[in-house]
Amino acid sequence: MELFQQRWNELAAIKRELAERDWFPATSGNLAIKVDDEPATFLVTASGKDKRKETEEDFLLVNSKGEPATDTKLKPSAETLLHVEIYQRTNAGCSLHVHTVDNNVISELYGDIGSIQFTGQEIIKAFGLWEEDAMISIPIIPNFAHIPALATAFSEHVKTDAGAVLIRNHGITVWGRNALEAKKYLEAFEFLFSYHLKLRLFR
Amino acid sequence: MELFQQRWNELAAIKRELAERDWFPATSGNLAIKVDDEPATFLVTASGKDKRKETEEDFLLVNSKGEPATDTKLKPSAETLLHVEIYQRTNAGCSLHVHTVDNNVISELYGDIGSIQFTGQEIIKAFGLWEEDAMISIPIIPNFAHIPALATAFSEHVKTDAGAVLIRNHGITVWGRNALEAKKYLEAFEFLFSYHLKLRLFR
Amino acid sequence: MELFQQRWNELAAIKRELAERDWFPATSGNLAIKVDDEPATFLVTASGKDKRKETEEDFLLVNSKGEPATDTKLKPSAETLLHVEIYQRTNAGCSLHVHTVDNNVISELYGDIGSIQFTGQEIIKAFGLWEEDAMISIPIIPNFAHIPALATAFSEHVKTDAGAVLIRNHGITVWGRNALEAKKYLEAFEFLFSYHLKLRLFR
Amino acid sequence: MELFQQRWNELAAIKRELAERDWFPATSGNLAIKVDDEPATFLVTASGKDKRKETEEDFLLVNSKGEPATDTKLKPSAETLLHVEIYQRTNAGCSLHVHTVDNNVISELYGDIGSIQFTGQEIIKAFGLWEEDAMISIPIIPNFAHIPALATAFSEHVKTDAGAVLIRNHGITVWGRNALEAKKYLEAFEFLFSYHLKLRLFR
Repeated sequence: MELFQQRWNELAAIKRELAERDWFPATSGNLAIKVDDEPATFLVTASGKDKRKETEEDFLLVNSKGEPATDTKLKPSAETLLHVEIYQRTNAGCSLHVHTVDNNVISELYGDIGSIQFTGQEIIKAFGLWEEDAMISIPIIPNFAHIPALATAFSEHVKTDAGAVLIRNHGITVWGRNALEAKKYLEAFEFLFSYHLKLRLFR
Repeated sequence: MELFQQRWNELAAIKRELAERDWFPATSGNLAIKVDDEPATFLVTASGKDKRKETEEDFLLVNSKGEPATDTKLKPSAETLLHVEIYQRTNAGCSLHVHTVDNNVISELYGDIGSIQFTGQEIIKAFGLWEEDAMISIPIIPNFAHIPALATAFSEHVKTDAGAVLIRNHGITVWGRNALEAKKYLEAFEFLFSYHLKLRLFR
Repeated sequence: MELFQQRWNELAAIKRELAERDWFPATSGNLAIKVDDEPATFLVTASGKDKRKETEEDFLLVNSKGEPATDTKLKPSAETLLHVEIYQRTNAGCSLHVHTVDNNVISELYGDIGSIQFTGQEIIKAFGLWEEDAMISIPIIPNFAHIPALATAFSEHVKTDAGAVLIRNHGITVWGRNALEAKKYLEAFEFLFSYHLKLRLFR
Repeated sequence: MELFQQRWNELAAIKRELAERDWFPATSGNLAIKVDDEPATFLVTASGKDKRKETEEDFLLVNSKGEPATDTKLKPSAETLLHVEIYQRTNAGCSLHVHTVDNNVISELYGDIGSIQFTGQEIIKAFGLWEEDAMISIPIIPNFAHIPALATAFSEHVKTDAGAVLIRNHGITVWGRNALEAKKYLEAFEFLFSYHLKLRLFR
């Protein structure tokens, strides 16, 4: 139970910080953090909540299939299946999904190509890549309205314990071995998106 | 009286959050929330207040015509008539009006056309539209200085319990069945406006 | 003395709010509020302070010439003379000077013309102009490094109890009959500047 | 020990303020403040921390070579060598390094030229330059992944007790005689970068 509370607090801290940046417009976005491995459980944001508020009902515990692990009236986020793919396929400990104007614009500008690559940027070290001309790439998948179809397309890109996928005109999903790494990946990508767009205005 | 206080607190929470985003420049903007149906009363922001401050005089109770329902020296917002149209014509529970740079720019760019449509964007689900190519449209009306004339033009677009209207070079008014829905509509439209403008810079 | 404390608190509240918006980059900006008429005294920001901090030394009382009215080691802001012009020539009660990126860009783009006009914008009502096609104009003066020369150029535009002047590549100075009006003018002009620039990107 | 705590508090205040502006994306950025001259010691940010959080492990004391001056499990920031260059070559008392979108865009647009100059801007007075047409220049160096190589390129531009260097596609490092001056330089340059980019959109 202590572990449960610790993970809850970690996720609540991330939710608070991202909410301050307005990265959950119109109740969008969802967050998850792994609690246990045997049996596999994770905390995920409840559906339809105003993420600017902090309550006892912000998260609920779900099992490896994304179903409530306890008796609750709360519904897991509609996109819980994406988080399920992450925890089933990797050793990730935390996963974050947010909508920002810049990640949406990037996803539309490069959606037909199917990915965008960044290189020659210091912030790429956040991904653990330390060479001078390190490159980081993020796939862009179509935004299937049918969540299981979306989860299938998404799962093709879930191969490592830390990673990220852009969903076209929808948002970014990132994951990492723990909460700090997931947030680091998220902030690094958002910085790259904003940098890329601003620079492109002058080119 | 408990209901009155509950509605006051809901509206105060929204005012605080929107004020933090600076969505009430120069004392602009006004907010309302329904308190009772029989007789119809709603709380509305008092005229000319600095919405960054929180006081006992932020809101006053008005009747179905927008007149003070109690003995008070406070004046209802000059645009109370728009809120009156909403509560008379629908079952809305909350209505919000704010000026932002982006909603003003959109209203001017598309004002001659009289509306703007959005499609292919995940955030459209915030309007309860779940299909893959769902479309949302928002009308843009002229900014008549005469408030009753503005209210008449506005009322033509007030047909459902949740909706929105852009007033050219003025701002957006949204309404919903309750405070959460009204704020969700507001944030979803502001996201769409900002996304549309940013993307258009690259097209 | 009560009046002194009341005015201090009003000015401190404005300073706090503008600091949160980062409108005092690099210790720039200065604020003043009138305390008494006979003899004329006003509070003005002390020179060189970090305006993100709140201390007992944020403001000092000066006389009608802008000289310290009490024994103090604090130096009034280098631009106190501009505030002196305002209180000598009008019945203003509060005056604010801030540097923002947008007011600097506007001042450079239209500096050769010597002014910029705005019309057809709802926020113009903040200036007490209620007609449908009301127009507001703000003069842009050169940024003389010699403060007395700057004060002279500035004073030519100080004719009413509420007004504003842009100093080229420097910032805006606004004043009003009281703290609320001065802040309202400031926010209205900053909104107009940001709106104008964003719209111009698409024209 | 009192001095140690005083410096810690000064650096913690700067960290808090810059973190609120999101100037430490993805755990990037590092800060230092001199504690003593004989022997030379300074506080520097520990490696890999989330700078939005405030803990007892945010900073550690290092010697003139940038090695821990006390027994600690904390690692100094990977870029501590840059701060070492500053304290060895000047009488600076504080040094700050941050990544922002605008300082990265400027560094890329003008990186081939090797510097950017600003003139005719009031904020230049923040650098202690009071003439009407004062000019301030900032060098832009390549972003060598090898930190000692980066430190060598950097050190060529460390000649005065207050100054700044842009590292291409990486960020800005500023220093000053004390914490206030370092922050003033940082904010002045960031203002100049944002002003320059916004103005260039219209030219």
